Amino acid sequence: MNRRPLILITNDDGINAPGLRALVEIARELGEVIISAPDSPQSGQGHAITLTDPLRLKKVKLFEGIEAYECSGTPVDCVKLGKQIIVGDRQIDLCVSGINHGSNCSLNILYSGTMSAAMEASLEGINSIGFSLLDLSWKADFEPCKPFVKRLMEYVLKNGMPNCKLLNVNMPAVPHGHIKGFKICRQADARWVEEYVEATDPRGQKYYWLTGKFVNDDKGEDTDVKALENNYISIVPSGHDLTKYDAIEGFRPLETIGL
Amino acid sequence: MNRRPLILITNDDGINAPGLRALVEIARELGEVIISAPDSPQSGQGHAITLTDPLRLKKVKLFEGIEAYECSGTPVDCVKLGKQIIVGDRQIDLCVSGINHGSNCSLNILYSGTMSAAMEASLEGINSIGFSLLDLSWKADFEPCKPFVKRLMEYVLKNGMPNCKLLNVNMPAVPHGHIKGFKICRQADARWVEEYVEATDPRGQKYYWLTGKFVNDDKGEDTDVKALENNYISIVPSGHDLTKYDAIEGFRPLETIGL
Repeated sequence: MNRRPLILITNDDGINAPGLRALVEIARELGEVIISAPDSPQSGQGHAITLTDPLRLKKVKLFEGIEAYECSGTPVDCVKLGKQIIVGDRQIDLCVSGINHGSNCSLNILYSGTMSAAMEASLEGINSIGFSLLDLSWKADFEPCKPFVKRLMEYVLKNGMPNCKLLNVNMPAVPHGHIKGFKICRQADARWVEEYVEATDPRGQKYYWLTGKFVNDDKGEDTDVKALENNYISIVPSGHDLTKYDAIEGFRPLETIGL
Repeated sequence: MNRRPLILITNDDGINAPGLRALVEIARELGEVIISAPDSPQSGQGHAITLTDPLRLKKVKLFEGIEAYECSGTPVDCVKLGKQIIVGDRQIDLCVSGINHGSNCSLNILYSGTMSAAMEASLEGINSIGFSLLDLSWKADFEPCKPFVKRLMEYVLKNGMPNCKLLNVNMPAVPHGHIKGFKICRQADARWVEEYVEATDPRGQKYYWLTGKFVNDDKGEDTDVKALENNYISIVPSGHDLTKYDAIEGFRPLETIGL
């Protein structure tokens, strides 16, 4: 392309998250950047959208020379508003979401606001990448992974995304020089074993707080969890079709069942 | 099984929704029912979970002889709390979510709290069905579809769910006698064309309100949208693996790329 690529950036940790800042620093070297991100942390928002409330969009000055908006809604709202209201008729060449503070590998793609935002852009036909670093901390060190993020974005801007509009990218939180490269993977069939912390508030009412342990029983060598264990960056080409095709025939008897 | 099956019921329209009442009336004929549903409408919540706030659970008397709890969280929270706190060590034989007021066919599975609740149960290894009627109204008539809902629940309780833990069931809103039966389908590759209504609040601040049009360009004969157009109930066996397997090889060059 002759013009500079237009890159839409969003996340779920909120517009002030260091992970978003890291992504902006990379993206601005590759194209024109527009930011549409939540005005507050939205982790675990999944593919939630705001239907019953009005949404607000506020132009903010965060980075020199970059158009940035904070949005009152969910990460998916940010992408919808970003495309419809902020960008309008211009073509978005790439949407990048993150860099998330914490893992979004395996089934976490379902709960993740970061990944749902990227997926929403992919549903609009935009090539999209969600980036996550396996470090929940606000002080996470994004420096070691930044060259890889840049390389992947360059690759996608140059080569497009064959047969796919969405990549789920997770990166090990290791020091400089320890990341071994990219692995193309499938989503591990892992699960959460949940527990609730039960407590009583000062007014004597019980409450519950979600906690849990990530358990991976999937021993496949080709999973994102395995790649990350071996200090690779996992890339899972992802879609939005949840049909379980191998289960269709098993339910056919229902088509001929009487009442 | 010798004991009566244990059926967990949830939804996203809130515990007082007529659609949930319809589902309870059916399920109580088939087994022991426990309800864990949101204390307020949660449409469009997708797979959102509550991470940064405590959750409340309140036992309510809604149906004679049925244990019912309203939960302060999202539909997915309701299922997690239902399983962990309310049901505990007992085995849940079936989770049913709905009956949703409005369609959850095609890509709406991603945005739907109803379907995300059912999916959450499926992730816990529980056979789950999300039911939706194609009528958004609070006064929707669930009577014509009730015999089909009952028949499907009976079928699954008797035969299990081969190779699958989750069904996305959508039902046409037509009068008695017009529903033609069940069709096993794939998720149509449809999309939303969105617009925002832009307005100004009494304090002079702009706001945006999401609206949109569902557009189906997928002309396949085997889709849920097509089945519904022909007055069939669509059943899409669904999973949680979003990997786009046919895109994996196309990204392999990244594995050998240098920085």
